[in-house]
Amino acid sequence: MGFEIERKFLVRGDGWRKAVSDSMRICQGYLNDEQRCSVRIRISGERAWLNIKSATIGARRHEYEYEIPVADGESMLAELSCKPLIEKVRYFVPVADRVWEVDVFEGENAGLVVAELELDHPEEPFELPEWAGEEVTHDARYYNTCLSMRPFNRWSQEERYPASRE
Amino acid sequence: MGFEIERKFLVRGDGWRKAVSDSMRICQGYLNDEQRCSVRIRISGERAWLNIKSATIGARRHEYEYEIPVADGESMLAELSCKPLIEKVRYFVPVADRVWEVDVFEGENAGLVVAELELDHPEEPFELPEWAGEEVTHDARYYNTCLSMRPFNRWSQEERYPASRE
Repeated sequence: MGFEIERKFLVRGDGWRKAVSDSMRICQGYLNDEQRCSVRIRISGERAWLNIKSATIGARRHEYEYEIPVADGESMLAELSCKPLIEKVRYFVPVADRVWEVDVFEGENAGLVVAELELDHPEEPFELPEWAGEEVTHDARYYNTCLSMRPFNRWSQEERYPASRE
Repeated sequence: MGFEIERKFLVRGDGWRKAVSDSMRICQGYLNDEQRCSVRIRISGERAWLNIKSATIGARRHEYEYEIPVADGESMLAELSCKPLIEKVRYFVPVADRVWEVDVFEGENAGLVVAELELDHPEEPFELPEWAGEEVTHDARYYNTCLSMRPFNRWSQEERYPASRE
């Protein structure tokens, strides 16, 4: 069991791509749509995990993660998970002494690019790269659980490209 | 991943107690109340498991089970599970060449005693002990997920002791 603290930002432009150090393809789905916690199956490469997170709004959440057989992950994604599944490529982008994760979504969430930074404390200072746009840490629409129920391609034009983000 | 086939019966009287071979105390809770599948945390003795079952009505269901650290199980039961938790003592009762599980519920489900038999095939023949009462395999009220949302002590007198079971 651990705590997870992360801050999340929209991404402006492609400036981050030249700094990518690594990437991985992720496919994940949720076994529930509860307020209390999320139960997520994730497959990346040849490995699979079951992840449980408390759904506390904000930056600090309880998190439990267990590796499981890939065959179990595949059948749970196919048979038991809410659809659509979340498909994305995660890019690792070093900035100063930290590594940001930039998620480029595909499938029904194509067009959405989000950058996340894990922190040890909610108020920990960090350098904001120039390609980091509006912070959406507390905006539930960007939770992956919500993106599986209401994917980006079903958002209104105004929601996807609000004037304040220009 | 496996399939689970089980048949469930109400229990009449105490005749089964003289045949008990073993028992264990169980405390469990659910992280969801979904139609699609159940996500269950169970602690028994010094061990804990995370269990995921598809919610197909009837006897045959997909089942996945992973052992987890007891400390994780305890904090998930306390913080993330639906309440009330299910508390019961499970008795193992050999009958002919099979072992029945008789669950004697406690807490908010006190008064309920249910016997279960795991089978390899839904139509597999077996010897029915004299203390096995009405079959409730297909009665959703007796699912442990349902007993955590609507425990036995909230059932009406008529539901608990219907005339047909006398």
